[in-house]
Amino acid sequence: MAGPQLHIFDPITDDEIKTTTSLLKDLGGDAKLHFIQVDRLDPPKKQAIEYLNIERYGGSKLPYIPRRTYAYYYKNNKMPLYKAIVNVSENHIICNQATPEGTVGPLLPDDMLDIENVILEHPVIKAEIAKLQLDKVFYNHKTLGKLNYVVVCEPWMYGTDSPNEKIPLIQAYMYMKLDHPEANHYSIPLKFSPVFEYLSHKFVRIDYLPSGPDEVVIKDTLPYKPLKSVEYHPNVVEDYKPREGLKPLIVSQPDGASFNIDGNKITWQDWEFRISTNVREGFALYDVFFKGRSLFYRVALNEMTVPYADGRAPFHRKQAFDLGDCGFGNTANSLALGCHCLGVIKYLDTRRVDREGNPVLIPSTICMHEQDYGILFLHQNYRTGSTVTTRRREFVIQTIATVANYEYIVNLVFDQVGAITVQVRATGILSTMPNDENNVTNFGTIVGPGVTAAFHQHLLSFRFDTRLDGDKNTVVYDDYVPMEENTPMNPYNVGYEAKRTFVEKSGYVDQSPFTNRTVKVINESSINPTTLKPVAYKFEMPARQMILASPNSYNVKRAHYGTKQFWVSKYQDDQLYAAGEFTNQSQTDTGLSKWCDGSDSVRNTDTVVWCTLALTHPPSTEQFPLMASDFLQFLVTPASFFDKNPALDIPLANNEFNKSVYYEDAKAAAAAKKSGSCCKTNL
Amino acid sequence: MAGPQLHIFDPITDDEIKTTTSLLKDLGGDAKLHFIQVDRLDPPKKQAIEYLNIERYGGSKLPYIPRRTYAYYYKNNKMPLYKAIVNVSENHIICNQATPEGTVGPLLPDDMLDIENVILEHPVIKAEIAKLQLDKVFYNHKTLGKLNYVVVCEPWMYGTDSPNEKIPLIQAYMYMKLDHPEANHYSIPLKFSPVFEYLSHKFVRIDYLPSGPDEVVIKDTLPYKPLKSVEYHPNVVEDYKPREGLKPLIVSQPDGASFNIDGNKITWQDWEFRISTNVREGFALYDVFFKGRSLFYRVALNEMTVPYADGRAPFHRKQAFDLGDCGFGNTANSLALGCHCLGVIKYLDTRRVDREGNPVLIPSTICMHEQDYGILFLHQNYRTGSTVTTRRREFVIQTIATVANYEYIVNLVFDQVGAITVQVRATGILSTMPNDENNVTNFGTIVGPGVTAAFHQHLLSFRFDTRLDGDKNTVVYDDYVPMEENTPMNPYNVGYEAKRTFVEKSGYVDQSPFTNRTVKVINESSINPTTLKPVAYKFEMPARQMILASPNSYNVKRAHYGTKQFWVSKYQDDQLYAAGEFTNQSQTDTGLSKWCDGSDSVRNTDTVVWCTLALTHPPSTEQFPLMASDFLQFLVTPASFFDKNPALDIPLANNEFNKSVYYEDAKAAAAAKKSGSCCKTNL
Repeated sequence: MAGPQLHIFDPITDDEIKTTTSLLKDLGGDAKLHFIQVDRLDPPKKQAIEYLNIERYGGSKLPYIPRRTYAYYYKNNKMPLYKAIVNVSENHIICNQATPEGTVGPLLPDDMLDIENVILEHPVIKAEIAKLQLDKVFYNHKTLGKLNYVVVCEPWMYGTDSPNEKIPLIQAYMYMKLDHPEANHYSIPLKFSPVFEYLSHKFVRIDYLPSGPDEVVIKDTLPYKPLKSVEYHPNVVEDYKPREGLKPLIVSQPDGASFNIDGNKITWQDWEFRISTNVREGFALYDVFFKGRSLFYRVALNEMTVPYADGRAPFHRKQAFDLGDCGFGNTANSLALGCHCLGVIKYLDTRRVDREGNPVLIPSTICMHEQDYGILFLHQNYRTGSTVTTRRREFVIQTIATVANYEYIVNLVFDQVGAITVQVRATGILSTMPNDENNVTNFGTIVGPGVTAAFHQHLLSFRFDTRLDGDKNTVVYDDYVPMEENTPMNPYNVGYEAKRTFVEKSGYVDQSPFTNRTVKVINESSINPTTLKPVAYKFEMPARQMILASPNSYNVKRAHYGTKQFWVSKYQDDQLYAAGEFTNQSQTDTGLSKWCDGSDSVRNTDTVVWCTLALTHPPSTEQFPLMASDFLQFLVTPASFFDKNPALDIPLANNEFNKSVYYEDAKAAAAAKKSGSCCKTNL
Repeated sequence: MAGPQLHIFDPITDDEIKTTTSLLKDLGGDAKLHFIQVDRLDPPKKQAIEYLNIERYGGSKLPYIPRRTYAYYYKNNKMPLYKAIVNVSENHIICNQATPEGTVGPLLPDDMLDIENVILEHPVIKAEIAKLQLDKVFYNHKTLGKLNYVVVCEPWMYGTDSPNEKIPLIQAYMYMKLDHPEANHYSIPLKFSPVFEYLSHKFVRIDYLPSGPDEVVIKDTLPYKPLKSVEYHPNVVEDYKPREGLKPLIVSQPDGASFNIDGNKITWQDWEFRISTNVREGFALYDVFFKGRSLFYRVALNEMTVPYADGRAPFHRKQAFDLGDCGFGNTANSLALGCHCLGVIKYLDTRRVDREGNPVLIPSTICMHEQDYGILFLHQNYRTGSTVTTRRREFVIQTIATVANYEYIVNLVFDQVGAITVQVRATGILSTMPNDENNVTNFGTIVGPGVTAAFHQHLLSFRFDTRLDGDKNTVVYDDYVPMEENTPMNPYNVGYEAKRTFVEKSGYVDQSPFTNRTVKVINESSINPTTLKPVAYKFEMPARQMILASPNSYNVKRAHYGTKQFWVSKYQDDQLYAAGEFTNQSQTDTGLSKWCDGSDSVRNTDTVVWCTLALTHPPSTEQFPLMASDFLQFLVTPASFFDKNPALDIPLANNEFNKSVYYEDAKAAAAAKKSGSCCKTNL
């Protein structure tokens, strides 16, 4: 049983999962429940703030707030989808009801693995595969010898294109690969795409894929003519030889890490916050303070959609909502020492539910560590030659989600001066399509024989529930514009100044890079004693192309948040996800388009900001068969929040601490080591 | 004597400096020469390419190319400025002539130090300082006891505002500080600004500085009323106590570095290039190859201008050209182990000339090292659980220039997949102005009592002399635009595609972030066998506000390059600097505005691209008294240049190589170490 020893923000426990599903199974009686997602629900914010204030400042006894969970499930593998909320501290169901008609729940990893097999074993699909005549082809691999080809099924969420699709569907993309567990099937896409029902496993139809210069498809499958696959795995790459010359670079922390972990509370270099893993977002931070001052109530990546550029049917249905449809916790990698980060590493786990309602542990989904990233600040007094130098130490929280082909590495990077860099690295394997020989298009890049990777976009939404110096915040933006010319203030026409605009109503801020528009969250009641202006944090986002699909497309109706970079809403409990709670096969966005419609005043109130980090990604050959990380990032940083540089007390850099060595000395030492000499050389 | 043992791109030697100045002094006879700058001149490119091709591919004997230098100097401390070119391999002057009337040479560090003293000792200035009545004020420092105040003079290049200023001038900004060598004078700006002649040291006038809400100045200096200064140096900060809790993070490379240095030739992880330090640019790279294929003939930061937002006279004259007016080599810091980079470090030196023509060594102006920066690429096969992970190793070339108050940290970061990240960190101390109590403006930020930091811009120009797969390159840009709607190719209106535009004539490319405009250099004769399109490198620059001053201002006339982000010119020898060769007190740009005027065809020819990296910088209080680095960066990366990921052979990450440890284990070990125990604890 979950007891009072848990913090209100601690992640869900195995017991809480079991309590939730047991109560619902008991209630369901004979019905077979098919669980899709169970996780902790945040407490109502009003209660939580009271709790946090007492926890931090004392004054009275901590209030009792029961822990709550939510559960999504189907009964007897049929629609509708049910949603329940459970008080797991007191063992009772708070509410439990069917969601509106046509609401489709997120996908469960177990179900996806099952459906792969269902599809591959279905007689219609087997018949289609038989037409490939794979028994007649093989590949003479230079290292592995004769290899057959096998077919792979990759089930996808079904991007809606009709208001009539009211049951959960799966579209599968089919591939072939060399018959080796690590062979790269994305290199050999096939031209047929089965559609199945998610719950009943019923066959619906086969779609055929265009692969030429136009939209025409051949509604049949022809015998496979082998093309050379492009492989990445060392066990499958022909004549693989790891490169030489990369010498070890070891990060050692002989006195241990500089951060401290107490349960799920992290402290590091003036930062304090709580972290809670969850299945949908991967993780969320709560109660974020720096130097004893409140910054954010909650911070998390809350959604990502990936629409593709190839408009031809059925490719238009490739629009994943990787958090809402799958979950970055559900798809999180188990991270390992020496692979995913260096130095002294703290790992955290995630817990999800399985279909039957049992807890499943996904170990080590989060790693936390420190890194050095060059110089933090430096000044040389040229009159004395004296230099003040500090190194930039960073604290990194990392999680990595594998959503079928793609990987997303999410890093929150904290520095010592109060800034958070939100950094996402896109890596993994491009989503590919079959391509006829010599077929060059302007919406895809040929990445290998018979295979092309369509252009696509990544649109990630990060939600910051702001709490700068208190519960009432305001969003403003500053534009930098030339001063009036030929005036006493600007006689030589070089002057410019900032013009401030207040965001009064829930809505969005348009991008304006050419006025250096800078969006800030301020607290109008907290005046910086130095600047005499309200304290602020700014959101430095790169100017980016937003979602390219037409406003009348399902892509945009479902992911309206992708049309703007910066949104402002007034806080309401349970408004956490930019495209709404249920995104899988959604017809329309039930998130920001509703909450940012201009009807709420957002000035000097409980304000939430939503940052859409967008990337238009036309693949290059260098990104296949495995792409080196593409970086997307933005910076959340104090903008006259503190009265001066808050990190002047960082000890100055020195080599007694950092122990660097000269190249020449290292070369001599390495040579000596190699020659087996135990004495210092005379080199 | 410089002999044939030197490579054509090796930096200037002491002997070459001496040869140059001796020849000119001999020629000058009785005249006293005042040297300003002497450095190596690149060979004519045609000859250099012939040399490089033979050096790399053999075929015949390396051609003999004499090494050349240039020298700027004044005779008898009078205008005009002379420029000479000297053949230092054969000891003769190639040409030597007066520059056009009014041409002012760059500033020499020695001269600037001298002029500080000249100004402080001048009777008029001493009289002005006397009015401060500094003998009547002092500060009771908590740590240092009673401290007097002293006056500091900071000479600046004189930003032109008149076509009549035809002799070199210095404008000085005056400050006060506590009487301690490391006290922060930028915290106490004074309200008078002397102007002196640079060569004759003659007093010209005193300008008075506005410090209130308008342009009005008080043409007098009043007794100083002490205000609390904002200090940064540990020896001056009151009650300074370095923070505890930051544990060592040591980068050790037990087998040495992975890079190799042979003279000035660097090889690392498939990269090869030569580096040459110089006084103007800091350093330049030459003959840059990756994986045996040519990318660039020459790469360097070539200029930076910093115009300020405060339009009031005389602040309009604050427009530094930090490379053209001073030189990033001249102002380079001497870097030290354990401070400026970690691990195994290779340093390089710079050589400059002094006034008399002698060589001066500036040691360790460049450091080169490797760093780890997280994950390079990763994919988890969710069917087998097998993960392929490689770490991103970077090779970093770093130089740091101190231009009076400001520091610029220039990093060129090379990765293992053929990309160069150009990263500049702005740090140091903000340029400040006196400010009346409670005077809040929209063009400056109050950063302390009586002191404000004006908004300003940094506009850096990076020049890439491209040589992708050969000597003929073309610049194109791709825009990403929606496909026509409701067509067979785009029935659901989600499709989009790339539209390519060729740059035919010398000129610029406008920014267009909302079409994700991507500028690429391509080789039209080198077709990627996979994509069937010309090979390309792309320049991924953040969309940025360019120079804000009016087109009719001197700021813009002098720094026309700052009006656009991306310029394209046809290669000509000696066209190296975006704002022209002579920027100090220039009236007009003699660089890109001339070379990119549309008169040259730049298609499929010897093409040079110029990237203006811009930052509009409204200071924040966190950036005073010392600012944590602001990052400016862009990426130069292959865009279907190679046929696939060129780094698939990087050994997979593993902990035998990387030696990371669990937080819990490290904590136990640190505790054991602290307790002096020599046994493993049972924790």
